[in-house]
Amino acid sequence: MKKENIPYKIYLEENEMPKAWYNLRADMKNKPAPLLNPATKEPMTAEELSVVFCKDLVDQELDNDTAFFEIPEEIQDFYKMFRPSPLIRAYRLEEKLQTPAKIYYKFEGNNTSGSHKLNSAIAQAYYAKKQGLKGVTTETGAGQWGTALSMACSYFDLDCKVYMVKVSYEQKPFRREVMRTYGASVTPSPSTETAVGRKILEEHPGTGGSLGCAISEAVEKALSSDGYRYVLGSVLNQVMLHQSIIGLETKAALDKYNIHPDIIIGCAGGGSNLGGLIAPFMGEKLRGEADYRIIAVEPASCPSLTRGVFAYDYCDTGMVCPLAKMYTLGSDFIPAPNHAGGLRYHGMSSILSQLYHDGYMEAVSVPQTTVFQSAEQFARIEGILPAPESSHAIHVAIEEALKCKETGEEKTIVFGLTGTGYFDMVAYEKFHNGQMSDYIPSDEELQQYFNKLPKI
Amino acid sequence: MKKENIPYKIYLEENEMPKAWYNLRADMKNKPAPLLNPATKEPMTAEELSVVFCKDLVDQELDNDTAFFEIPEEIQDFYKMFRPSPLIRAYRLEEKLQTPAKIYYKFEGNNTSGSHKLNSAIAQAYYAKKQGLKGVTTETGAGQWGTALSMACSYFDLDCKVYMVKVSYEQKPFRREVMRTYGASVTPSPSTETAVGRKILEEHPGTGGSLGCAISEAVEKALSSDGYRYVLGSVLNQVMLHQSIIGLETKAALDKYNIHPDIIIGCAGGGSNLGGLIAPFMGEKLRGEADYRIIAVEPASCPSLTRGVFAYDYCDTGMVCPLAKMYTLGSDFIPAPNHAGGLRYHGMSSILSQLYHDGYMEAVSVPQTTVFQSAEQFARIEGILPAPESSHAIHVAIEEALKCKETGEEKTIVFGLTGTGYFDMVAYEKFHNGQMSDYIPSDEELQQYFNKLPKI
Repeated sequence: MKKENIPYKIYLEENEMPKAWYNLRADMKNKPAPLLNPATKEPMTAEELSVVFCKDLVDQELDNDTAFFEIPEEIQDFYKMFRPSPLIRAYRLEEKLQTPAKIYYKFEGNNTSGSHKLNSAIAQAYYAKKQGLKGVTTETGAGQWGTALSMACSYFDLDCKVYMVKVSYEQKPFRREVMRTYGASVTPSPSTETAVGRKILEEHPGTGGSLGCAISEAVEKALSSDGYRYVLGSVLNQVMLHQSIIGLETKAALDKYNIHPDIIIGCAGGGSNLGGLIAPFMGEKLRGEADYRIIAVEPASCPSLTRGVFAYDYCDTGMVCPLAKMYTLGSDFIPAPNHAGGLRYHGMSSILSQLYHDGYMEAVSVPQTTVFQSAEQFARIEGILPAPESSHAIHVAIEEALKCKETGEEKTIVFGLTGTGYFDMVAYEKFHNGQMSDYIPSDEELQQYFNKLPKI
Repeated sequence: MKKENIPYKIYLEENEMPKAWYNLRADMKNKPAPLLNPATKEPMTAEELSVVFCKDLVDQELDNDTAFFEIPEEIQDFYKMFRPSPLIRAYRLEEKLQTPAKIYYKFEGNNTSGSHKLNSAIAQAYYAKKQGLKGVTTETGAGQWGTALSMACSYFDLDCKVYMVKVSYEQKPFRREVMRTYGASVTPSPSTETAVGRKILEEHPGTGGSLGCAISEAVEKALSSDGYRYVLGSVLNQVMLHQSIIGLETKAALDKYNIHPDIIIGCAGGGSNLGGLIAPFMGEKLRGEADYRIIAVEPASCPSLTRGVFAYDYCDTGMVCPLAKMYTLGSDFIPAPNHAGGLRYHGMSSILSQLYHDGYMEAVSVPQTTVFQSAEQFARIEGILPAPESSHAIHVAIEEALKCKETGEEKTIVFGLTGTGYFDMVAYEKFHNGQMSDYIPSDEELQQYFNKLPKI
């Protein structure tokens, strides 16, 4: 096996761990457009946002200027349960592909939530506790965010109410039990518990749900319950901020060995992992200090960056949330059942949308069966059984490494391995049995949703 | 939170990882009794064993004298995929229990097999490949060993045929799919594929199976297939040897910070984890260099050490395997359905049995519901969702820490957290719903099995 003077796994020491989150917006010339009030279509004020979100999180959401936010000590302590996460050199994969490329991946799956989601969950739970709240509501797709939030709430003795996208709830029954182990309550969405859920069920009986629906229900529940706020695991600026820990650790580990990546690849649903992974690298790019190719990978069944439009849209199906300017497929777009539950979102982080719009990053979309082929290949070679979401990044990393094989270039590729697929075995079973669907929406179908976008 | 100058997680550097396995037998005055040929009742020769096992593994099995076996470089390379495993200081648990005790746990769950089993699986697959075999057969209880072996075989391009204890096969359907992802075939045991399986099904229709049955089937399959050998994930001396990596790493990490443990605790099914964890500590104890309390924890439903007899017995239900001298409940003892699938074995490693018999260690048994209470408590405090097997050790570690709270003693407790419970959510669900059984066999019931032990 090819060996260099670089360990198989690069771990930072505890004292090398980042002590502040990095706010990418501080270095953006074109700031992400503000959230708009759905009633007035005016920018949301801190006061308005505080009805839905915790106070400190609102401050983080609106701050486009402060470059670094100190990580509170309680959160740093919690991070030590599962961080630093390893940056792994894929020596075996390189050898198997016979590529001159050097491949690294930042593995975020070594915690019970099985993904990077815990990075923001613990921050949001901390601020909710600090504010003296009773509990929080949220939505979850694949269940990773819900699990992460359950763990975080259990740690701070907060009540946790999760609306889980119905198709995931059914495909991942064990996720519910993990959340229960941490004391959360879990409801399949759309449900009859909320007005918006009942409306969606009436209009789309038998729907598998979507993140957009589940968000509407969770927001309604928070607004109608005393001492509760809503928390969200992706899309928002505050989440990108917390997730910057991924990129900061990655950069610190690379710097330790003087490694300069050429290409950085991440899967993109709402953008939380991608935004976090690329943050410090994109910062350098924005400041003109270094250059990187940055690639977002999304499912062909839900291609917001590659086939969506850059416009103001509702963040949720029920249109109760603020509007965000982002690449979107339309807030009532409900993707075909796709096992990468975490990527089933119609929109994309405003920050990432703006950066993509301004030409700072690329995006590609990949059909599901192709993604699972790469997932299985990766599992057999590197040992880790990847989540379907993460496997989108794996697939494109392999493609780029194979291009290097053709050209002979020794490029350094870094990708985000956001989590494990232990709770995705129903999807793997369908893949093994050749029963996986590769539905891709037609241009006409997408156009129908675009026609319904709010006129702003 | 209480903080000392000891990191939350102690990781060894790659160059600090053990390069040789430690063979505890070399330091035992009373060596473990030899395996006996089931037909002649004479000690098994290397030649006889080589029909069932790989050649190099037979050498390791029979060697009571060599203290260290060098770990082949290919295996060291593979270990780097998931080793060193962290030794974690349970600061949070200590604080929650308000105990002066210092608690550490060696966490073996950060790999796709979800447990320590991969340590021996890769070694056994390596020697099978080295011998030029086509494939291997095995049994699995909870599915962790089967998953580990599937991963190892996939790495070395070996065929892998797994007989999975039926009750686990049904309770853990997703494990089968993980094994398939790595290319293995999985059969619920007892099955109609083998003569011994058909016989067991005839005598015990509707049985949930046991490790003892599954072993018989896997051995029969290996003997009747060309180019195949049987491999076993526990009980055998060779497995204890490979698993010594757990204890060696643990000791190296403790030594790095001058920590001397007072109590070492591990769960015990066939003994692979316990034997590995305690190896270097027990070595010091045998050589009179240091003293430790060493505690084996087993399920009350399958209490081989605490209620079994020390005698020669068959290792499998079908009596096709050699006989081993060990603490046993009788080879046709089939435990009540207990979710700690990995602890459902009627016997115990000959090495550990001898050490227990000679007074070098203690043993306790714990009922299942009690174990799950501690599992859930641990998950909420330490974040890791433990396997039911591992939770036996957690429970006794908590008990010992609470004793320290009463006496005010600052004892240092080390326990083995062998794996994660991600594939045990059916069991957690039963626990949450109050549907967990705590069946404990009566003395009369056990006596019936003891009466049938072979007269040797």
